[in-house]
Amino acid sequence: MSRRIAIIGAGPSGMAQLRAFASAAAQQAEIPEIVCFEKQSDWGGQWNYTWRTGLDEHSEPVHSSMYRHLWSNGPKECLEFADYTFDEHFGRPISSYPPRAVLWDYINGRVHHAELVPGRLLKDAVRFSTAVRQVSSHSERGYLLTSEHLPTGQQSTEHFDAVVVACGHFSYPHIPAFEGIKTFPGPVTHAHDFRGAESLAGKDVLIIGGSYSAEDIGIQAHKLGAASVTFSVRTQPMGFGWPDTLQEWPLVERFTGSTTHFLDGRTRSFDAVVLATGYRHHFPFLAPELRLVTANTLYPDGLYKGVVFEGARDLYFLGMQDQWFTFNMFDAQAWFVRDLILQRAVLPDPQSQRRDIQTWLTRLKSVQSVREDVQFQADYIADLIELTDYPSFDLDTVVETFLAWKQDKKENILTYRDRCYRSVMTGTLAAPHHTPWMEAFDDSVEEYLRE
Amino acid sequence: MSRRIAIIGAGPSGMAQLRAFASAAAQQAEIPEIVCFEKQSDWGGQWNYTWRTGLDEHSEPVHSSMYRHLWSNGPKECLEFADYTFDEHFGRPISSYPPRAVLWDYINGRVHHAELVPGRLLKDAVRFSTAVRQVSSHSERGYLLTSEHLPTGQQSTEHFDAVVVACGHFSYPHIPAFEGIKTFPGPVTHAHDFRGAESLAGKDVLIIGGSYSAEDIGIQAHKLGAASVTFSVRTQPMGFGWPDTLQEWPLVERFTGSTTHFLDGRTRSFDAVVLATGYRHHFPFLAPELRLVTANTLYPDGLYKGVVFEGARDLYFLGMQDQWFTFNMFDAQAWFVRDLILQRAVLPDPQSQRRDIQTWLTRLKSVQSVREDVQFQADYIADLIELTDYPSFDLDTVVETFLAWKQDKKENILTYRDRCYRSVMTGTLAAPHHTPWMEAFDDSVEEYLRE
Ligand SMILES: Cc1cc2nc3c(=O)[nH]c(=O)nc-3n(C[C@H](O)[C@H](O)[C@H](O)COP(=O)(O)OP(=O)(O)OC[C@H]3O[C@@H](n4cnc5c(N)ncnc54)[C@H](O)[C@@H]3O)c2cc1C
Ligand SMILES: Cc1cc2nc3c(=O)[nH]c(=O)nc-3n(C[C@H](O)[C@H](O)[C@H](O)COP(=O)(O)OP(=O)(O)OC[C@H]3O[C@@H](n4cnc5c(N)ncnc54)[C@H](O)[C@@H]3O)c2cc1C
Ligand SMILES: NC(=O)c1ccc[n+]([C@@H]2O[C@H](COP(=O)([O-])OP(=O)(O)OC[C@H]3O[C@@H](n4cnc5c(N)ncnc54)[C@H](OP(=O)(O)O)[C@@H]3O)[C@@H](O)[C@H]2O)c1
Ligand SMILES: NC(=O)c1ccc[n+]([C@@H]2O[C@H](COP(=O)([O-])OP(=O)(O)OC[C@H]3O[C@@H](n4cnc5c(N)ncnc54)[C@H](OP(=O)(O)O)[C@@H]3O)[C@@H](O)[C@H]2O)c1
Repeated sequence: MSRRIAIIGAGPSGMAQLRAFASAAAQQAEIPEIVCFEKQSDWGGQWNYTWRTGLDEHSEPVHSSMYRHLWSNGPKECLEFADYTFDEHFGRPISSYPPRAVLWDYINGRVHHAELVPGRLLKDAVRFSTAVRQVSSHSERGYLLTSEHLPTGQQSTEHFDAVVVACGHFSYPHIPAFEGIKTFPGPVTHAHDFRGAESLAGKDVLIIGGSYSAEDIGIQAHKLGAASVTFSVRTQPMGFGWPDTLQEWPLVERFTGSTTHFLDGRTRSFDAVVLATGYRHHFPFLAPELRLVTANTLYPDGLYKGVVFEGARDLYFLGMQDQWFTFNMFDAQAWFVRDLILQRAVLPDPQSQRRDIQTWLTRLKSVQSVREDVQFQADYIADLIELTDYPSFDLDTVVETFLAWKQDKKENILTYRDRCYRSVMTGTLAAPHHTPWMEAFDDSVEEYLRE
Repeated sequence: MSRRIAIIGAGPSGMAQLRAFASAAAQQAEIPEIVCFEKQSDWGGQWNYTWRTGLDEHSEPVHSSMYRHLWSNGPKECLEFADYTFDEHFGRPISSYPPRAVLWDYINGRVHHAELVPGRLLKDAVRFSTAVRQVSSHSERGYLLTSEHLPTGQQSTEHFDAVVVACGHFSYPHIPAFEGIKTFPGPVTHAHDFRGAESLAGKDVLIIGGSYSAEDIGIQAHKLGAASVTFSVRTQPMGFGWPDTLQEWPLVERFTGSTTHFLDGRTRSFDAVVLATGYRHHFPFLAPELRLVTANTLYPDGLYKGVVFEGARDLYFLGMQDQWFTFNMFDAQAWFVRDLILQRAVLPDPQSQRRDIQTWLTRLKSVQSVREDVQFQADYIADLIELTDYPSFDLDTVVETFLAWKQDKKENILTYRDRCYRSVMTGTLAAPHHTPWMEAFDDSVEEYLRE
C-alpha cells in the first residue's frame, strides 16, 4: 500500500508543501498519496479575505485576520518565491507593496493550474470546507486523523503515515483582560476581528499593543480619518515619527466606563478600543502530546530545523516561526519536509537533533540588534535550502532590503509603502505604484494593475 | 460500580438537572454519580455575561449572547421556578422585568448553597472551565466522553452510562451572506456579538431579522440615541407601534458600499448593520449520529417528550425547544429525565414513543394563533409535570400572562417592561420598578434593589 501524507491547511505553507511534492513529481520522483485538508472554501490562508468575524457560517472560528485596505507591510522582494517570480506572474514590474488581493493572486498563480502528478491537478489534492478535528498517534505507527466536511457534517477517520501541520498561528487571538473593560461603552475589537477603519473616522481610538498590527491598524485609522489614535504599549515603544494625532502612551491599568486609566496615572476618554495584542499558537485538533507549545519567536523550541516535531515521529510543522521572511521561508521548510518524507534526507538521532536546536536557541538568545535578528532567520533559511534542491537565492541582500525597509519606516511611517526595491530573483526594480499609499482607497487587483 | 451520569452545560437547564437530582437525594433516594461539565468559569449559561466576543481567552467560542442593559423580555412570572419563588429569593416583591444580573442572582440563589447529597455541595459536581470535546457511543453501552480542562489543556476520556445535553441553542450564530456585504464599510455584527448600543448613538442602524433579538436590539439602539433604526424583515413584520425613527422595511437584496438595496427597489445608506438572524442548534462535540438536527421550533422532531433522543439509548437533551417558557420548563424536563435515569419512570417501546412525538407534531402543525402556540408549550409542560413530582402550578394562568404581555407590547413596545404581573406560585403582585425602563441606565443588582 502506498504511503499517505496529510497536510493540514492550504495557506501559503500548505500550498508550499503541495508545490514541493509537485516539483519532485515533475522530476520523475515517486510521491506518496497526499491529502490536504482546508477548512475554508478556498486556499490562501490569511490571504483569503472574509467579512465574517468570530464564527463562520459553519460555526468554525474564522481564520483570517486580514482587513480591507491591507497592503503588504514588508517589501514583496523579501517574500518572493525563488521558483515563481513576480515577473513571471505579472509579466511586468509592479510596486514593492501590493495590496492583499494582489498577493493572493500571486500565491494562487503558482499552483492554480499546476499538476501534482501528471494528469492530476494539485488543487484536487485539497479537500476544501473540511476541518481537521482530531489527530492522534496510531498504536502501530503514523496517525489517525478525523476530519469533518463542514457543509454536510460528514466525519471520516483515516490513517496517515505522516502529518504536516500548516494551520498558521495568527488566527486565535490573544485577548488579555483589563480591569473594568466590561464597562467600556464603545466597541472592543481584537485585531483578529478588525475588518476596516471606516467606522473609526472622527473617533478617538485606543489601540493596545506595540507591534505590526497595532502600527498598521493605527495608520489605517489615521488614513481613514480617525480624530486621534493612542497606542498603549507594554514594553518597547514603536518610536515612529507619528503625525500629531497619533501618540504612544504606557499600558492601560483599567477602564471605568469610557475613561481609560494608564499606568503613569494619566486618564483619557476613547470611543473605541482595538486590542492588537497578538495571537496564540493553538492546535485544538491535535492530541495534547502532539501540540507544539511556544510563544511567537524566531525559533520555537521542540522543532528540529524549525519543522520536525521532537515529541513524535513523522509529525511536521510549517511556518510556526515569528516571521521576517514568509513565503520563501515556507518553501524552504516544505522542500526539506518533502525530502524527509521521500527519504532523500535523513534525520539524525534525537541527541543530534537536540544539539542542533540548542545551537540555534543559544544564538537567538545572543541576538542584540535588528540586523542580527533578520540575519538569524536568513541563516536558518540558508541552512534549509542547503539541504534541498529549492533554488538558492541571495539571502544576504534580502537582509539588506529588510534593514532598508526598517529605515524607511523610521523616516516616514505613512509613506514607506511608496518605496521601490529590487528583486534578488530577477534583478527587476519595482515600479512605483500609480497612487501614493496614503491616497489609495481602492485595493482591488483591477485598480492596482490599471496602467 | 455506581452508574455515572454526565450533564453537559451548567446553564439554567443543566442547573435544573442538578437540582432535580438533589431534590431526589433530599428525599433519601439513591442517586448515581453526577458530573456536570461547564466550559465557562461560572454557571448561569446565557445569563453569565461576558464582554468578550468571538473567541474567549481559551480560544473557545464565546457562549453568551447577552449584552449590557439586557432586561428580561417576558414577565418573570412566566419563568418562575415552582420550587423556589422570587419571594423566597428576594424576600419582597420585585418588578416583573428584572435585568440580566438580577435573574442570574435568582438562578444562582436556588443552588448556590445547596447540597447534591448530604455533605457535598451541588456546585462541586460541576467541573468548570472544562469543555466537552467528544461524545461517542461506547461499544457495550453508555458513552465515552472526552473533556478538556481549558486552562491546562489536560484531556480525559471517561465512561458515562447516560448523557444529558444541556448546552443551549442560542450561542452559534446563524449568519447569512448578502451580496456585496463585504463592501459595507461600517461594523457588521451578529446579535450574538452585540454587547451594547452605546456606539450606535447618532447612527443610522440597519437590523436584519424580525424576532426577539431584532426587536430588543432595535429598542436598545433607540433608547441609547440611535438616529434611526431600520428593521429588514424577511417574512412576518413585527408590527409594533414604533416611534417615528424606527421602521420596518423588506429584506435586503444586496449592499454596494454603505448603500443598501431592498427587495422592493428602495435604497438607503446606513452606518452599522446588526444581523439578528437567529442561531443554530449546533453540537460539534457529539458524534454525528448523536446530533439533534432541528430548526428553532416548539417541538424538535426526534425527542420523545421533548427530551429523550430517539436515535440512541440513554441520551437526553434539555431546553432544545423554542421558548415561551424557560426556567420552569427546563425544570419539568430535568425532573422527568431524572426519573427515567432513576428508573422511577419507564420509557415505552420505540413505536409508542414515535406515536407520542407524532401526536405533538401534528398538533403543532395545526396551531393557528398565538394563544394556541403558548398553550401548546403549556400543555407540553403539564404533560411532563404529571409524570414527575415537580410541584404543579397554574399553567393556564401563565398562558394568560403571556397573552397579556403580547398585548402590552402591542400597546407600547417602549413601556411594556413597566407593567406588573401576579405570581401563580405565591399570588404576589410584582412591585413597580423605581425607574421606568426607558430611563433606567444602570442594570446592576444594587441599583435594581435600591429602595
Ligand atoms: C493581519 C495579518 C497581516 C499579514 N500581512 C503580511 C504581509 O503583509 N506580508 C507577509 O509576508 N505576511 C503577512 N502576514 C503573515 C502571514 O501569516 C503569512 O503571510 C502566511 O499567511 C502564513 O501562511 P500559513 O500557511 O503558515 O498560515 P495561514 O495563512 O494562516 O494558513 C493556514 C490555513 O490552515 C487552515 N486551517 C487551520 N486550521 C485548520 C483545521 N483544523 N482544518 C483544516 N484547515 C485548517 C486555515 O483555514 C488556513 O487556510 C500577515 C498576517 C496577519 C495576521
Ligand atoms: C440574547 C438572549 C436573551 C435572552 N433573554 C431571555 C429572557 O429575558 N428570559 C428568558 O426566560 N430567557 C431568555 N433567553 C433564553 C435563554 O436561552 C434561556 O433563558 C436559558 O439561558 C437557556 O438555558 P440552557 O441551560 O438551556 O442554555 P444556556 O443558558 O445557553 O446554557 C448552556 C451552557 O452550556 C455550556 N456549554 C455549551 N457547550 C459546552 C461544551 N461543549 N462543554 C461544556 N459546556 C458547554 C455553556 O457554557 C452554557 O453555560 C435569552 C436568550 C438569549 C440568547
Ligand atoms: N500587512 C500588514 O499590514 C499587517 C498588519 C497587521 C499584522 N501583520 C502581521 O501579523 C502578524 C502578527 O502581528 P501582531 O502585531 O498581531 O502580533 P505580535 O507581533 O505577536 O505582537 C503582539 C503585541 O501584543 C502585545 N501584547 C501582548 N499581550 C499584551 C498585554 N497583556 N498587554 C499589552 N500588550 C500586549 C505585545 O507586547 P509585548 O512586546 O510587550 O509582548 C506585542 O506588542 C505579523 O506577522 C505581522 O507582520 C501584517
Ligand atoms: N431578554 C431579551 O431582551 C432578549 C433579547 C434578544 C433575544 N432574546 C431571546 O433570544 C432568543 C433568540 O431570539 P432571536 O430573535 O435571536 O432568534 P429567532 O427567534 O430564532 O429569530 C430569528 C430571526 O432571524 C430571521 N432570519 C433568519 N434567517 C434570515 C435570513 N436569511 N434573512 C433574513 N432574516 C432571517 C428570522 O426570520 P424568519 O421569521 O423569516 O425566519 C427571524 O426573524 C429568544 O429566546 C429570545 O427571547 C431575549
